[in-house]
Amino acid sequence: MDIEAFRKAGYQAVDAICDYYTKIREMPVNSTVEPGYLVKQLPDQAPEKGEDFSVIASDFQTKVLPGITHWQHPSFFAYFPSITNFESILADMYATSVSNPGFNWSCSPACTELEMVVMDWAAKLFGLDEKFHGQSGVGGGIILGSASEACLTVAVAARERCLRILVENQATNSGSKINGTVTGDSARGSGIMTGIDGARVKATQVVIPEDLRASSTSRMVMYGSTQTHSIGKKAAIILGMEFRALPTYRKDDYALRADVVREALTEDSKKGLIPFMLIATVGSTNTGTIDHIGDIGQVLKDFPTVFLHVDAAWAGVCMALPELRAKLQLDAINTYAHSFSTNFHKWGLVAFDATALWVRGRELLTSALDVTPAYLRTAQGDSGAVIDYRNWQLALGRRFRSLKVWFVLRSYGVEGYQRHLRGGLEMAEYLEKMIQGSPDFELLVPKSLALLVFRYHPQDREYTQTELNEINKKLHAALAARGDIILTQTVLPAENGEEGTFCIRFSLGNARTEKRDVEQGWDLVVRLAHEVAR
Amino acid sequence: MDIEAFRKAGYQAVDAICDYYTKIREMPVNSTVEPGYLVKQLPDQAPEKGEDFSVIASDFQTKVLPGITHWQHPSFFAYFPSITNFESILADMYATSVSNPGFNWSCSPACTELEMVVMDWAAKLFGLDEKFHGQSGVGGGIILGSASEACLTVAVAARERCLRILVENQATNSGSKINGTVTGDSARGSGIMTGIDGARVKATQVVIPEDLRASSTSRMVMYGSTQTHSIGKKAAIILGMEFRALPTYRKDDYALRADVVREALTEDSKKGLIPFMLIATVGSTNTGTIDHIGDIGQVLKDFPTVFLHVDAAWAGVCMALPELRAKLQLDAINTYAHSFSTNFHKWGLVAFDATALWVRGRELLTSALDVTPAYLRTAQGDSGAVIDYRNWQLALGRRFRSLKVWFVLRSYGVEGYQRHLRGGLEMAEYLEKMIQGSPDFELLVPKSLALLVFRYHPQDREYTQTELNEINKKLHAALAARGDIILTQTVLPAENGEEGTFCIRFSLGNARTEKRDVEQGWDLVVRLAHEVAR
Repeated sequence: MDIEAFRKAGYQAVDAICDYYTKIREMPVNSTVEPGYLVKQLPDQAPEKGEDFSVIASDFQTKVLPGITHWQHPSFFAYFPSITNFESILADMYATSVSNPGFNWSCSPACTELEMVVMDWAAKLFGLDEKFHGQSGVGGGIILGSASEACLTVAVAARERCLRILVENQATNSGSKINGTVTGDSARGSGIMTGIDGARVKATQVVIPEDLRASSTSRMVMYGSTQTHSIGKKAAIILGMEFRALPTYRKDDYALRADVVREALTEDSKKGLIPFMLIATVGSTNTGTIDHIGDIGQVLKDFPTVFLHVDAAWAGVCMALPELRAKLQLDAINTYAHSFSTNFHKWGLVAFDATALWVRGRELLTSALDVTPAYLRTAQGDSGAVIDYRNWQLALGRRFRSLKVWFVLRSYGVEGYQRHLRGGLEMAEYLEKMIQGSPDFELLVPKSLALLVFRYHPQDREYTQTELNEINKKLHAALAARGDIILTQTVLPAENGEEGTFCIRFSLGNARTEKRDVEQGWDLVVRLAHEVAR
Repeated sequence: MDIEAFRKAGYQAVDAICDYYTKIREMPVNSTVEPGYLVKQLPDQAPEKGEDFSVIASDFQTKVLPGITHWQHPSFFAYFPSITNFESILADMYATSVSNPGFNWSCSPACTELEMVVMDWAAKLFGLDEKFHGQSGVGGGIILGSASEACLTVAVAARERCLRILVENQATNSGSKINGTVTGDSARGSGIMTGIDGARVKATQVVIPEDLRASSTSRMVMYGSTQTHSIGKKAAIILGMEFRALPTYRKDDYALRADVVREALTEDSKKGLIPFMLIATVGSTNTGTIDHIGDIGQVLKDFPTVFLHVDAAWAGVCMALPELRAKLQLDAINTYAHSFSTNFHKWGLVAFDATALWVRGRELLTSALDVTPAYLRTAQGDSGAVIDYRNWQLALGRRFRSLKVWFVLRSYGVEGYQRHLRGGLEMAEYLEKMIQGSPDFELLVPKSLALLVFRYHPQDREYTQTELNEINKKLHAALAARGDIILTQTVLPAENGEEGTFCIRFSLGNARTEKRDVEQGWDLVVRLAHEVAR
């Protein structure tokens, strides 16, 4: 394709995208194609001769689009929003036009520097302490592909940090007593940072003896709760380590409590296990719950080998609203968290993929992840004058993701970004009132930001938990079979000997959702529930 | 930004990209900005009010573009090419317009199915055995973000496979003898596949006892050569495992030999270590070398715990040329490899990121990586009727990458794709003749596809290795200081008590490079070399 053919195809693509968004409200939100629908329609090998792009573009409309679930549709209430917008599309056009693998500063200095800039903009927007800012020279932020990647990345850092603490303890003590200067209470929580938690000075190279690694790693445990996203367990599985899901209770709205943490860490430490990481969640996937980070942070002072990662994949962007920061535990995060992660690409207005990860000490990442062979060396990297982001992440290559964050933050401005978030909160309040006004429905936990978790609970007679689960599974199946709404389900933990609670999630925050869409969605839920009950 | 504002900004972006490619030849290939150039120019927080997009687009041109290294420039000869094109830009426009996190088939059925289709197209284009095709129901392909991600992913699969073999051996034997049916010679290499190497039937769930995991994992070793890309060592570091770089020799053009493999595996097995994975390379980063995969595969028959991953990140796409398949060891790959990876996003005409990974048995991935909580379940996934690619990869979310592969393969056709690759090969032959005709230069290994590795070696007197290294470092520094060419360096392994060999890589294959660019580049190298010598 030559330049003029691209100009033509590019204009057509822009027009096609405009048409898509003009018509999106009239389309079914949920693709109802059968498995194999596209495989059947396409040839089973690449064409021998090149095809005209107009044919290809037309096939996108007629073959691909019918198999797309429209996450930008006003009636998309499933999972969490995964917002894209025109700013992100434009950014991806420009970014792909200057595509490069981005592993070093010198691959394209603008890509690295723009990432440093927008991650500091976002750190300030979200109220993160300056230790997390790249400007501090100590911590800093990076854009990764997903919250799972962020979690796995910090898990590697946490494991190495734990091993370094064990080595230092071996060196400075004869065994049991923990070296207060390096890893004890006075260093943690008080803001005094050491090499291991991210000092400006390069930490002394700590060599981890292979026998210590072997004997310690198999005893290391990662902690989360029953409500921690599966990315925690998956990170542990990938690393071949144990993940322990601590119990949560309905009376706490499924938040992880500090006393539960203390009990588990104490018990495991007595058994000779080594707690190395805890994932605390701000806005769980199941119910939007927020763990008690402040209290947990206090407990972790007594367990200095534990790295605290705060996963706020969905809710974190709401830190942009000052009125929500206390509720979202910002102070506790700023005091205790080693790392903090949120997805711009959910509610945060930047197209997938754009996960923000900040660390209190960049050295936590680089000391675990820097592998520099001769062919990747550069004068700038060797001098230490620049960041080479490959040493902050698992992979070598990386896309130019900062451009879409830059476009979005500038085009919306802080005001526009806040307005968007508040819009989602308002829709959720509106829905909450409707649910509360529907006597046959119950909220299983209080509304969390823009997420409501409910079930159908007819009041005509007593129902057992098992019966309610059956009715709600039927209701969800009836909803899932339709094209005009999309809602997802989950199961809340079993308690008091009963089976877990099957429930339906109604997730708001999409940019195109209006009150009428929420009303229409809720009316449909009510109508189907009554049909199911009959 | 509303629809009409996007139409305007979209047309402008298309025009700006057309201008960029009209002028690219006249621009300096290498950005010569100083560290911090962009940070200095941008405000240190996001604007309070939204800005007009025309201002943002203008800043892209005036502030970002000067800090871009132009990987699409005809004089970009560094690293390997990382090609983008108009087809990829168009695909990213469309993909971002329907953005979704892609973790399940039902997230957008088209995304998963198009990936299945194009990965089978590519498997056929590259001549991979049908066991690697998704159509087989046994193996299949997935598009990942980078060759490092592919390597780490299969390393996790390889570790779990090894543990399962150890468990099965424990169960069926009293210790030393290896169970031939499951893991022995007759199963490997003969095409008879078992559950562990990817049978159609679901392998029996093998539960790995924690004590076996603990006692085995710390003894597991990953192998590669001194020429294996650092992604191998980094994958091992991430998993907390040992990477052993086996020696390679100049007389073998740095290819890994089978006898070296046998010696190392035998030695380590005797020590009680457990070899679990070997990375063989087709087209190394240093010199484009190709390991002796057929012979190595024969050796691995005696070491059934070893998973063979073939990393052909750069060279793999050349399998599209039937005349190169024997040289690239396709038959051996089809016979012995458990997984094979190549980057569309290098020489392969698809914009970063698009790494193709194929596995002989998809169960190798899913048995290691499937974690499915209630909120990710779908009727289609539960039924087994569809692929949920999240269970084939480390992360949960994924972009709609197949669209750009589809656009490229259709727009170029097989003929156009082959023509592009042959163009790079011709440029390399042309350069090879020029180097061979320059008496003061030497090729350190024979040309490999489109990569030439040379050094300046003046013939006026005898030079020591150290002197030659110094001269060539100066030559490379002189080249790196310029804006009009970009070449990278590497160091070949020390041998015979001498220090390693510093050399310069001249890497061809970019879509816009013409003979005149190669000539101009080589003339510059020669001129600067003579200046350095003076």
